[in-house]
Amino acid sequence: MTPPPSTIVPPVVSLAVRVLTLICLFISIIILTTNTKTFEFTDYSSYKIKFNDYEAYKYLLATTVIGLVYTLLQTVLSVLQVASGNRLGGDIRFHIDFFADKIISTLLATGAAASFGMTLELKENFDDYEMHTFKNKSNAAASLCLIAFVFGAISSTISAYSLPKRA
Amino acid sequence: MTPPPSTIVPPVVSLAVRVLTLICLFISIIILTTNTKTFEFTDYSSYKIKFNDYEAYKYLLATTVIGLVYTLLQTVLSVLQVASGNRLGGDIRFHIDFFADKIISTLLATGAAASFGMTLELKENFDDYEMHTFKNKSNAAASLCLIAFVFGAISSTISAYSLPKRA
Repeated sequence: MTPPPSTIVPPVVSLAVRVLTLICLFISIIILTTNTKTFEFTDYSSYKIKFNDYEAYKYLLATTVIGLVYTLLQTVLSVLQVASGNRLGGDIRFHIDFFADKIISTLLATGAAASFGMTLELKENFDDYEMHTFKNKSNAAASLCLIAFVFGAISSTISAYSLPKRA
Repeated sequence: MTPPPSTIVPPVVSLAVRVLTLICLFISIIILTTNTKTFEFTDYSSYKIKFNDYEAYKYLLATTVIGLVYTLLQTVLSVLQVASGNRLGGDIRFHIDFFADKIISTLLATGAAASFGMTLELKENFDDYEMHTFKNKSNAAASLCLIAFVFGAISSTISAYSLPKRA
């Protein structure tokens, strides 16, 4: 018995979830990479803090970029499927999607978790009014990554329920 | 058509994976909660650092305890299944296991990620020889949580492949 040719939900629903993931990841990357804080001192010297001064935020960037590239690929495949009515890749594609979705959604969860932990620690040890905006923007980027994880987990659930039938 | 009464792997394999998860989580909790560092000063005063001085390690404890309680429950259910040959809970149990395994394995991944991020930051900003053992023990606890996540992800994959057939 061959498995059904499509996933358990209409392809357009899968596509919508992918697009929402993409939007969250894209905005998260923009916010994270443009987040800087410059301290001006009275002697005209200055010190600039950037996201890549912190290991956790570098990891967040890595996970969101990997998530973005993967989701972009899946979005293109979904658009092709909605347009043509055919699902590329056949049977093996269900298994690949299942594992890839699982890995990517977990990666996004870890990126958000590491960043929230970092921001909490910054808040406790470095509670400077000047750093307020920097911390809030970092939290915004991590929150968008968390929302992207939720959409990724929905995609992952769809792909699990779309796995070919058991013998 | 009713789904097969058992999971896609023999119940004893599922049970073995649960037991390995349990062992990792149990050792992780022991290492984490007994990890302290006392600084003795020349005036006989002292300062004690404990895992719960750091938000990320408190979160690690929360995730490992939740993971332990859940895995213990699943282990008991698996033992009953291996002993009696019957799987408790019927059809709905496959869906519950699928979602619960997904949530718990993701939680464990986030606990490990937040803690690794924290330890890296401690290493950069607080690179004191005295703190060496404290950081290494924290990393050991997070690593065991990561290994528990890998076993949890295997359980989660088994439960996804064990989902009832699509109509």
